[in-house]
Amino acid sequence: MAGRSREKYKMNPYKVIEIKRSVFENNDREAGLLRKDLKDKKIFLLNLMSSPGAGKTTMLKALIKELRGDLRIGVMEADIDSVVDARTIAATGTRVIQLHTGGMCHLDAGMTKQGIEEFGTEGLDLVILENVGNLVCPAEFDTGAVKNVMILSVPEGDDKPLKYPLMFTVSDVLLISKIDVLPYFDFNIETCKERTRKLNHNIKIISICARTGEGVGEFADWLRNEVKEWKK
Amino acid sequence: MAGRSREKYKMNPYKVIEIKRSVFENNDREAGLLRKDLKDKKIFLLNLMSSPGAGKTTMLKALIKELRGDLRIGVMEADIDSVVDARTIAATGTRVIQLHTGGMCHLDAGMTKQGIEEFGTEGLDLVILENVGNLVCPAEFDTGAVKNVMILSVPEGDDKPLKYPLMFTVSDVLLISKIDVLPYFDFNIETCKERTRKLNHNIKIISICARTGEGVGEFADWLRNEVKEWKK
Repeated sequence: MAGRSREKYKMNPYKVIEIKRSVFENNDREAGLLRKDLKDKKIFLLNLMSSPGAGKTTMLKALIKELRGDLRIGVMEADIDSVVDARTIAATGTRVIQLHTGGMCHLDAGMTKQGIEEFGTEGLDLVILENVGNLVCPAEFDTGAVKNVMILSVPEGDDKPLKYPLMFTVSDVLLISKIDVLPYFDFNIETCKERTRKLNHNIKIISICARTGEGVGEFADWLRNEVKEWKK
Repeated sequence: MAGRSREKYKMNPYKVIEIKRSVFENNDREAGLLRKDLKDKKIFLLNLMSSPGAGKTTMLKALIKELRGDLRIGVMEADIDSVVDARTIAATGTRVIQLHTGGMCHLDAGMTKQGIEEFGTEGLDLVILENVGNLVCPAEFDTGAVKNVMILSVPEGDDKPLKYPLMFTVSDVLLISKIDVLPYFDFNIETCKERTRKLNHNIKIISICARTGEGVGEFADWLRNEVKEWKK
């Protein structure tokens, strides 16, 4: 599969990396080491997680627009297959790499480190890792990121904190996305916030619409500030 | 966690089972044995998979309505936590059990067997297993089901067959759900079908709207026929 993928995508203007399963037994230790290395290099790594189709890539496009000029951004797109997301991000002129996980449902710290090394992060302030679309497994692995952000889209329903509690527990920010379609779905934002805060009292919650840009500025402000603090 | 869950849910009109991790090394063998046992008992097991929030439970409610009177149905709801879905199905008067996976992101054949044994399938024609909401891991494990059905909802996007190919490859039926919101999303049904058929030439694809009932009759017809063949 690895060979075929490389062949298939070799004409693209971004690297496609076939990530190998991590050999490290102690993921937390590896994650800590990676975070320390990033701190030394003054690079902020953000881990972005959600279900498939919650709008990670669309939000990223809007976020990049907000932050352009302030931060030098790189994006690592993790997927089981395809280069759909890398292509979308490359079209914004942003440095991007596509990571293929070889069927794996999440990234751990060792896999993230492989991606970072292949990517080459020189000259970047912020690297955003778009994790595999999955509300379960990515929550279980510290990638070495400085902060975790999750997206829950309105069409998925406001019961998700009840069913997938770990993801809501490990995230520093919850972005409630696709709020432009609220009229067409049974989704109560207040109920969702309440259920989330029961799991994670300190989580920051922002309602966003990547299409209209609503809420993206507030998220960009938060991120700009976090990166500034990290680089001190 | 197990103890707390049982305590929390003990007043509910359905069993809540904490499923244990499977001890079997050879999942395919276990799946084959379970399927043979179900064949002997003339019980049809359907494995229903999708991303979180694609509408598995809502579709099930509509399906149960269609099949009531023809088939004796039982539902096994698998989730990491909560009894939200079991409560919804119980309200339809259908026999239901809630399986808690203890954080696991999928069910394998051993776990499914535990559920079946705790459920007690006497007098049932059809048991529907609503798998954990996840477009990655459940595709990798044969549960012992006779057929696999997946749901992809319109808000998730028509690029999902490219990114999560295995799920589309192992499914016998793809239900494209929430087609009532097609006007509000960039989703091309023909593109989605084409991408799916490239992975799986024989897959049956039905567009459905559980709210209006559109397409649910066609799916019910398919299922009624499959159950009849299985019981021969």
